[in-house]
Amino acid sequence: MLSRVNGLHAGSIVGVLKSRLDSALRGVDDHSDHPTMFCHHEMEARDVTKDSMAPPGWSGCGAVSAFDQAPVINRVETFSREFVAFVRVSASDGTGGWGQVSPYHADISAQVLHRQVVPWALGQPASDIAALVSSIPEHEHKFPGSYLRRALAGLETALWDRAGKIQQKSVCELLGGTPGPIRAYGSSMRRDITAQAEAERLVALRQQFGFDAFKFRVGAECGHDVDQWPGRSEEIVPKVRRALGPDVSLLVDGNGGFSPSRAITLGQMLEDEGVEHFEEPCLYWELEQTREVTQALSLDVTGGEQDCDLATWRRMVEMPAVDIVQPDVCYVGGMLRAMKVAKMAQLQGLPCTPHCANLSMVTLFTMHLLRAIPNAGKYLEFSIEGPEYYPWQEGLFVESPFTVNEGQVTVSDKPGWGVEIHPDWLADTTYQVSELPH
Amino acid sequence: MLSRVNGLHAGSIVGVLKSRLDSALRGVDDHSDHPTMFCHHEMEARDVTKDSMAPPGWSGCGAVSAFDQAPVINRVETFSREFVAFVRVSASDGTGGWGQVSPYHADISAQVLHRQVVPWALGQPASDIAALVSSIPEHEHKFPGSYLRRALAGLETALWDRAGKIQQKSVCELLGGTPGPIRAYGSSMRRDITAQAEAERLVALRQQFGFDAFKFRVGAECGHDVDQWPGRSEEIVPKVRRALGPDVSLLVDGNGGFSPSRAITLGQMLEDEGVEHFEEPCLYWELEQTREVTQALSLDVTGGEQDCDLATWRRMVEMPAVDIVQPDVCYVGGMLRAMKVAKMAQLQGLPCTPHCANLSMVTLFTMHLLRAIPNAGKYLEFSIEGPEYYPWQEGLFVESPFTVNEGQVTVSDKPGWGVEIHPDWLADTTYQVSELPH
Repeated sequence: MLSRVNGLHAGSIVGVLKSRLDSALRGVDDHSDHPTMFCHHEMEARDVTKDSMAPPGWSGCGAVSAFDQAPVINRVETFSREFVAFVRVSASDGTGGWGQVSPYHADISAQVLHRQVVPWALGQPASDIAALVSSIPEHEHKFPGSYLRRALAGLETALWDRAGKIQQKSVCELLGGTPGPIRAYGSSMRRDITAQAEAERLVALRQQFGFDAFKFRVGAECGHDVDQWPGRSEEIVPKVRRALGPDVSLLVDGNGGFSPSRAITLGQMLEDEGVEHFEEPCLYWELEQTREVTQALSLDVTGGEQDCDLATWRRMVEMPAVDIVQPDVCYVGGMLRAMKVAKMAQLQGLPCTPHCANLSMVTLFTMHLLRAIPNAGKYLEFSIEGPEYYPWQEGLFVESPFTVNEGQVTVSDKPGWGVEIHPDWLADTTYQVSELPH
Repeated sequence: MLSRVNGLHAGSIVGVLKSRLDSALRGVDDHSDHPTMFCHHEMEARDVTKDSMAPPGWSGCGAVSAFDQAPVINRVETFSREFVAFVRVSASDGTGGWGQVSPYHADISAQVLHRQVVPWALGQPASDIAALVSSIPEHEHKFPGSYLRRALAGLETALWDRAGKIQQKSVCELLGGTPGPIRAYGSSMRRDITAQAEAERLVALRQQFGFDAFKFRVGAECGHDVDQWPGRSEEIVPKVRRALGPDVSLLVDGNGGFSPSRAITLGQMLEDEGVEHFEEPCLYWELEQTREVTQALSLDVTGGEQDCDLATWRRMVEMPAVDIVQPDVCYVGGMLRAMKVAKMAQLQGLPCTPHCANLSMVTLFTMHLLRAIPNAGKYLEFSIEGPEYYPWQEGLFVESPFTVNEGQVTVSDKPGWGVEIHPDWLADTTYQVSELPH
């Protein structure tokens, strides 16, 4: 494998990517005294000529497998800024596709991708997405949690785009669904906004785009029962309800702001106001707290956006801690892992309303998911924040896939994700590439 | 805050560190139209002049707190290579200390430190370690899991060193313990070694250093019941026992290699051979599998090294899934979080034998921990791998804190960690600094 980094603009110079596979292949090529791989577990140096746990890319070092004739992943490129990083995957047959690692600190996730995900993917069959998605977290099991999965999502979503382009189908079709419309709810990301101002902008958005469902925020993020400012939660709920009238679906997000008892008290007020969805009432890692709220209230208590460990998901669903599951396609590690969560929920009779809180590709991924799973929730989360609040999501695409008509967005029937990343955006990024030797 | 990166040697040039606090302070200083903070959650832009969730470093922007007279953290520096990164923290009174982020991909953890940990620490009282350790994971709750905690450990352990140097006490004394000796077990990190060769080197190490306890490896890492090579586990256990005789304590590590049924079968053989400690028999995230093995066997089933989420730890201890808990001070996020795990275990009557699998500072941290907790296990894990296997752990210290005499190491009574990082090592690293404005 060759790894290079080019700063495509002067402000982005990063250290030369040194991947594990790099070191490993150096060891092999050099025929040094220690032809071993110093992997990042602790810590078995491996004889790469025999080890069955060797990165799959090493099969070229001598092993022969049944997949030897299938096109293999031979290059993974990333185009990174701090908030967004796109991934281009290429295969030995010249095919390829585009995906995205999870937003926020995306440049770090891109590094994790090159360091800990790509070495296990290079040389592997590009079409066997499931095998990569299940094996990579085990290979990198010393790094449970967010970053590895944020990075894995980048590889996985790019492989789906490639698969769609080869088969001339949209990803949702590959996953068993059909292109078409999806009801969206307008999702506010702000707590620094007064009840009055929030109500006014939701009314205007309903007028402009036809949304018939909105989510807004109560409490404060991990707030321990201290509101964003005193009385805000009690004020905003009736204010928004009065402004939008009785026919609009209302959802609120607690972002882990409450103890169970405070969440239940507030939840009763939410029920009185006809709010139908109470998201993350308690600290999300305290599943028993969330379950307590779920059991006490009749409205739907929802959650799971932060959870990226499938064992935790299984527990959450089996309890069940929530009425509706909300995996985030990027946080959880891609489409297949999100669909595993949806499947667990389906078996328990729970709907899946994924989390997708910005207009980078994560909302597009979620649109395809919702058109493919049988237990899709009632609507797609659709951020209402514009360039003044999320300037970093501007200019990502040649043509936006996020047009809203009468409160609905549409999954197109174009191949793959059906979207083209804007070349101007790509030109102003940090570029990294990991590839097999030519 | 100023952030700079200097490549102290020509091979290490990294992108200019752009921290969240940086952007935030720019917003404040510029008196721009949008004096908001684009934080890395999704995603509330915050008015930094009022928000109670603002990074603590912002208290200088107007708020007055009771801590205003206490020395505050004003600079955090990292000195990184791929496997090891040291952290130097400085306070406004000129005091400071040294710590270490978790080994392996340590350079990425150092970036996470500057990006996601330090912004919440600058300007905060340097002595209120507990407040930082409890608040930072909540602030960064969108990033559950390994990297954030690997990074947090770097800040936290540096603050302990500072506290010890101020009080002229070793860290273990600050934590309620005393300096002194600790029994160590020699811990093999290798599976690419034959039973015969492993037995021979353990005998030699017993002769040389007086170890009376050893751990070696069975199965294969996340091996799904496939051994490193056929029959290796069944061969190595009796071979090592015969070679070392009946009086040596034997421990084995499964590294998640087995299903419960295979682990139980193998465990019965381990019991027959007088093995006293069976580590990570099953995939660690499958707590119920581990509990099944624990309940079926009379020897001590142990685990937890990968677990860095305290809610998961609480569940593991309450089940209990294991007989002995094994937090890793660096993976779990520092001394206080490791001590929380030890305390949970103590309340359940379980000993704590931490994981520390290399001779970077993590073993030193663990030595101090074991001399400070009431439920310390029988011995310290002490890697037996040398420079041919772990070359990256060479040359870290001016004087090694890891001298073994008659199978024991000693926690010194020197202030702080009692160790000096070698200036030659530091000189050949990537340097990053985040600091408050002067």
